[in-house]
Amino acid sequence: MAKNLTILGSTGSIGVNALKVVDNLGSALQVVGLSAHTNGELIISQARAYRPQRVAVSDPATARTVEKALAGSGIEVLAGPAGLVELAADEAADICLNGLVGAAGMEPTVAAVKAGIDVALSNKESLVMAGDLITGIQRRSGSRIFPVDSEHSAIWQCLTGEDQADIRRLILTGSGGPFRTRARETFGAITATEALNHPNWSMGRKITIDSATMMNKGLEVIEARWLFDLPAEQIAIVIHPQSIIHSLVEFTDGSVKAQLGLPDMKLPIQYALTYPRHAPARWEELNLVRIGELTFSDPDLEKFPCIGLAYAALKTGGTAPAVLNVANEEAVYRFLDGEIRFVDIPNLISAALEHHHQQDADELETIRQAGAWAREFARKWRPSGTPG
Amino acid sequence: MAKNLTILGSTGSIGVNALKVVDNLGSALQVVGLSAHTNGELIISQARAYRPQRVAVSDPATARTVEKALAGSGIEVLAGPAGLVELAADEAADICLNGLVGAAGMEPTVAAVKAGIDVALSNKESLVMAGDLITGIQRRSGSRIFPVDSEHSAIWQCLTGEDQADIRRLILTGSGGPFRTRARETFGAITATEALNHPNWSMGRKITIDSATMMNKGLEVIEARWLFDLPAEQIAIVIHPQSIIHSLVEFTDGSVKAQLGLPDMKLPIQYALTYPRHAPARWEELNLVRIGELTFSDPDLEKFPCIGLAYAALKTGGTAPAVLNVANEEAVYRFLDGEIRFVDIPNLISAALEHHHQQDADELETIRQAGAWAREFARKWRPSGTPG
Repeated sequence: MAKNLTILGSTGSIGVNALKVVDNLGSALQVVGLSAHTNGELIISQARAYRPQRVAVSDPATARTVEKALAGSGIEVLAGPAGLVELAADEAADICLNGLVGAAGMEPTVAAVKAGIDVALSNKESLVMAGDLITGIQRRSGSRIFPVDSEHSAIWQCLTGEDQADIRRLILTGSGGPFRTRARETFGAITATEALNHPNWSMGRKITIDSATMMNKGLEVIEARWLFDLPAEQIAIVIHPQSIIHSLVEFTDGSVKAQLGLPDMKLPIQYALTYPRHAPARWEELNLVRIGELTFSDPDLEKFPCIGLAYAALKTGGTAPAVLNVANEEAVYRFLDGEIRFVDIPNLISAALEHHHQQDADELETIRQAGAWAREFARKWRPSGTPG
Repeated sequence: MAKNLTILGSTGSIGVNALKVVDNLGSALQVVGLSAHTNGELIISQARAYRPQRVAVSDPATARTVEKALAGSGIEVLAGPAGLVELAADEAADICLNGLVGAAGMEPTVAAVKAGIDVALSNKESLVMAGDLITGIQRRSGSRIFPVDSEHSAIWQCLTGEDQADIRRLILTGSGGPFRTRARETFGAITATEALNHPNWSMGRKITIDSATMMNKGLEVIEARWLFDLPAEQIAIVIHPQSIIHSLVEFTDGSVKAQLGLPDMKLPIQYALTYPRHAPARWEELNLVRIGELTFSDPDLEKFPCIGLAYAALKTGGTAPAVLNVANEEAVYRFLDGEIRFVDIPNLISAALEHHHQQDADELETIRQAGAWAREFARKWRPSGTPG
C-alpha cells in the first residue's frame, strides 16, 4: 500500500531531491502535500506533476499567483506561515518530510509531531531550538522522527537492531568545509563566494555557509543529542574531508559501526521514507577503490569557534540553543549581504549567548520569544570597532 | 544467568584470546569444556584456573599426561579425536567456541550443530568443507552459528536488524598480507620467515601463511557464502592494508555499512559470546585520527592465484571446496617444512582440483573421503621439473 507523503519545502534542495526519490520509489509513495516559500513557478509545475491534495505557499503574494495557476485543478492552496503549519499537521499524510530551511521549520515540525504524524526531518533547527519540547510531545503522540541529515541517518542506520545502553559514543564526521586547510590568519578576508564553494556537497546557501563556519557540525551535535537521547559528552566530531563515511557509532565493547555512501542526499531521504527497509536505486554506487583513501583529523576549534559555541549552548540548555541557532541564521544572512565579515559570525553568536537570559525551553511561546529576541539582537549587533 | 561455554582449541591463538574474554566478562560466562592437541602444560594450567567439567586432548600421549596431572581434580579428561567430538557435542554447553585450526575443526562443528548447541565459529574450514551439510543440519537442530572471524563478525554486525533481501553485496576486506607490494617476479624466493611476518594481525602459523597467499580471503568468501546464504557473485574482496574496516555490506539503495576496530581478535570473540548485546571492555580503543588514513585497492589476482582458485571451487561446489581446503593445508605445511616453494602452494591446489572427481557434499563420509584423497594427493605432489 502506498505511503502518503507531505514534503515541506519541496522547491528547495532537499525537496527537489525528495521528489527524485518519489520518482525512484514509484507506486510506494503518494504525494499528498507540497510547500514552497517564494518559488511559485516550481511549486506550480511540481503540483501539476505530483497531484497533491494541498499545497502551502508561505509567502502570501506568491500564494495568490499559485492559487490562480492551480484554479480548477482540485488542488487546495494554503497561504502564509499558518498554511504551512496547517499542511504539516494534515493527517492525510503518513509521513511529513520537513526540508524547510532555518528556524521557520520549527513550528511545522511541532505541528506534525503533535498530530502524531511521523517526521522525516531535514530541518535540524527544529530539534536544535525545541528538542526538549518536541521529544516531550513525541512521547505523548507516538510520532517518530526519522533523520534525513546524512550524518544522523548514518548513526540511525548504525543503530538498527542495537541496544541504546550499548552505545559508548557517536562520532559525527564533517568535511571541514572549504576552509579546512586555509590559514587562520586569512579568515578575515573570506568572501561569500569563497564560503559558498563547498568541496563535496551541493546544498542550499544557508547550510553551505554553516559548513564553512562548521556551525553546521555544532548544530548537528545538538540535533544528535535529541534524536539519540545522549549527552554532549558522548557526541564527538571528527574531520573526514572525503565525506564518504557519513558518521560512526562506537559501542561499549570498542566495536565501531559506520555508514558510508557517496555524498548524495537522495540516499538518506529515501531511507527515511522506506525505513526499516532499503529500496533498490540506480544512483551512482560507492566504489572505495576508486576513492582510494579516507582520511581523518581532529577539528580545529580555534579556526572554527562555532563548534565550541554550540557545545556551550547545549551545556547551558533551555533557550540557549534556540538563541544560538537564530543568531547564527541572522549572522549568516548578514555575512551573505556583505554587512559583517566571516569571522564576525561567531563573534555575533557569542555576544547573543552572553546577553541572553536563559530560560527553560519546554513551551513553544518561550522558544518563540527567545528566537525573536535573538533575531533582534543579531540584526542590531555591530562588530567592535565599527562606527555605530 | 551465566552462559556455559566450551572452548575447542583453548591453547591456540583464538582459545587464549577467548579466555581473556572470559576474564573480561566475569560471571556472565562459565567455562564447562576446554580442549588442546599437544600443549599439555597450558591446558593443565587453564583447567586449574577455569575449572571446566571436562577437557579433551586430541593427542593420546598428551592426554595421558594431562589425565595424570588433573587426577583428583574432578575434571574429566577425554582423549583422542573422538574425545574432541564428544566434548563438542556436550550439552552442558550453551555455546561452543570452535578455535581449532584446519580441517580437524570440521567434525567437532558438525557434532555441536547436530546436538543443537550454538557455535561461535573461528574454524572457517568447517563451513568451507561442509557448508551444505552443516547448514542442512542447522535447519533441523536449530543450532546457530556466530562468526568469530573478524571479517564475518563485521558483516554479521552490519546485518543486525537488516533484511536479507536488502543486501546487494558483501565486501570482505583483506590487508593484502606481507607481500601486497612485493614484485611478483620475486615470489619464487619467498621464505617461510618472510611469509610468517604478518603486518597487522598476530595469529597462528597456518592462517598467517594463508594471509600471505591470500587463500585466507578465498576461504572467507566460501565461508561467507554459507554464513549469509549469498552466491559468490554477491561477495567481493577489497584490499585495505590498515585492517581497520573489517568488512562492509552494501544494500540495494547504495547505502554501505561497515564495522571497524583495531585488529584484535578479542572483539569478535566477545561479540559472538554476548550477541545480540555489546559488553563493556577496556581494551585499546580505535582512534581514527591517530590512524589518519584508510586506503583501498583491488586484489591482484595474478599475484595471488589462490583467490581465483577459491572462487572456482565455490562455483564447482560439492566436494571441490573441501579438496581446495585440505590441499591448501598440506601445501602450507609442506611450504613451512621447506619441501615446496611459496609459489607452489597454488600450483599444488590447482592440480588437486583438476584431478579430483567432484561429488555432492551432503554426507559427512563423502567429505571425509574427498579430504583424505586431497591430503594424499597433496603429500605426493611434486612441482613440475622436480626429480620424482
